[in-house]
Parts: sequence; C-alpha cells; structure tokens
Amino acid sequence: MGLFSKTINTLDDLFVHTLQDIYYAEQQIAKNLPTMVQKATDPQLKQALQQHLTETEHQVTRLEQVFRMHGQPVKGTTCAAMDGIIEEAKDILGVANDNDVKDAAIISAAQAVEHYEITRYGTLVAYARELGRQDCATLLQQTLDEEHAADRKLTALAESRVNRKAA
Amino acid sequence: MGLFSKTINTLDDLFVHTLQDIYYAEQQIAKNLPTMVQKATDPQLKQALQQHLTETEHQVTRLEQVFRMHGQPVKGTTCAAMDGIIEEAKDILGVANDNDVKDAAIISAAQAVEHYEITRYGTLVAYARELGRQDCATLLQQTLDEEHAADRKLTALAESRVNRKAA
Repeated sequence: MGLFSKTINTLDDLFVHTLQDIYYAEQQIAKNLPTMVQKATDPQLKQALQQHLTETEHQVTRLEQVFRMHGQPVKGTTCAAMDGIIEEAKDILGVANDNDVKDAAIISAAQAVEHYEITRYGTLVAYARELGRQDCATLLQQTLDEEHAADRKLTALAESRVNRKAA
Repeated sequence: MGLFSKTINTLDDLFVHTLQDIYYAEQQIAKNLPTMVQKATDPQLKQALQQHLTETEHQVTRLEQVFRMHGQPVKGTTCAAMDGIIEEAKDILGVANDNDVKDAAIISAAQAVEHYEITRYGTLVAYARELGRQDCATLLQQTLDEEHAADRKLTALAESRVNRKAA
C-alpha cells in the first residue's frame, strides 16, 4: 500500500486503501501484460494472456465503479508488492533464452500476479460484506472469480503443455 | 527473483532459481513474523501467527533438504515480490491506530504472504514433477498443503472474529 501519510482508523479506511492498492496494481498489470503476450511463444498461452488483458481492462472499470458506489475518488496508491512481482518477471524474462523455458517463466510470473489479486480481492470482498456494502462485494466477487479461473487455466496450460515442452 | 546475472537455459535452471527465490522469501518471513505476532491483539490471531512462525522454520529446513537432494548449494536470491509485500505490511501497521483494525490489516498482510508462497510452491511442485524429481515434489507439496491450510485458517479468523470487531 505504498508510503502514505493518512491514518487508518477504521475498517472503512482499510477497505478504501486496499481498493487503491489493487487499483494501482491492476494498472501496472494492464501496462505490462502486453509485453508478456508478445514474448510468449506457445499459441494457447499467448491467447490466454491476451484474454486476461481484456479481462484486466474490465476489472479496472469495475474497480472504478466500486470507488464511485462507495463515494470515494478513483485513486491508486503505490503497491510495492505488485511492483516487485513485475520486477521479478522482467528479470527472469531478461535472462531466459530458450522459448519454451521462457513460456514456463511467463506462466509462473502470471500466476504470481493472479495470486496477489486473489488475496487482495478476497480481502476486499470480506471487508465489503462486513461494512454492509453487499453491492460492492458482488462486483468485487466477480473479479475474484475471474482471477481464480485465470489461475486454474494457467495451471492447466503449464501442466498439459508448457512445462513439458520446457523440460 | 532479484537481479541475477546467470542465464536461464533449462527448466532445471528455472526450478533452482525459483527455489532460491522462495528460500530468500521464507527467511524474510521468519524475520518479520515475530513483529506481527507481537502487534496482533486478538489471542486466536496471535496464536495462529505464532504457529505459522514455527511452521515457517520447518519449511526453511525442508527447502534446504530439497537443495541438497537436487545437488545444489543452499542459497537465496533477492525476492522483490516478498520485499514489497513486507514493505506494504510495515507501512499499513505503521499508520493503523485501532487495535482491531490493525488485526484486520495483519490478516490481510499475512494472506498476501501465504498467496505468494502458494503460487511459488505450486510452480515448484509442477517443475519438480516435470523434471522427474518426485522426491523433491513430495517435500514441496507438504509445504504447499501447509500454506493452503494457513490461508484458510486466516480467512476463517477474519470472517468469524477479526473483521467483525474492526467494523
């Protein structure tokens, strides 16, 4: 949740900060996924990442809706975790030579991204429910379900094709 | 996986690098969990974190076993993702005033840690199997199962007690 000066006094403050954290994270994903799509070689992997890029753009819009429903300005705050996940992905792709190994590394990086989203959206859904914002919870749950599905798809791709080719 | 100069040519190289990444991450967790235990107020949360600290120490030992089984030196490599997750946790705990809200923030931070471990151990198990290292896969799967259990426990604590008190 980056460096911020605001004090967190209530669960509502924590909810809004977590929204800002994942909003920044989603924007970083949207910015960096195209490079992963481009670097991927396996056609099914390329297609899955491309599809997830479209999904990410919808998720950003959905987050903006949640901010508005909750009467908050649409705003991100530096997410050191997502910055770190993306930095690792760039590092590994910078030194992976073989295309099949690169594909395996891309899946691993993409799953690290998914799991960060899963944990934060899971938290956000729980906070929204606790705060009596079932309307926000419903929207956030839609994204959470998509993240779980994307993660399962990547696992299936890794196990059925990509890791096999890389081994 | 930090900044490294080594080239990744094979799935085996990727496996070893991911082992080094999570080895560093586990050590950072072991170093920072005691502060979270100390800052937690809810007795059940305190106990769950304390238990996970003990588990983390076993997981470090288990990783050292995997390095040795695979004929590799026991070594970590900077994990920017875990550094970022821990930085966010420190930031939020630094500005959360209310004890119940702090407990909710601790759970969120701990679940981000768990999910990073879940994604990396999941990848490691898949790589180990693909590389024909069922012996390594079995050990890594034990840790993966523990991480899933720890995450479920934190979700249950958040939903049954901690978020409620914070709201």
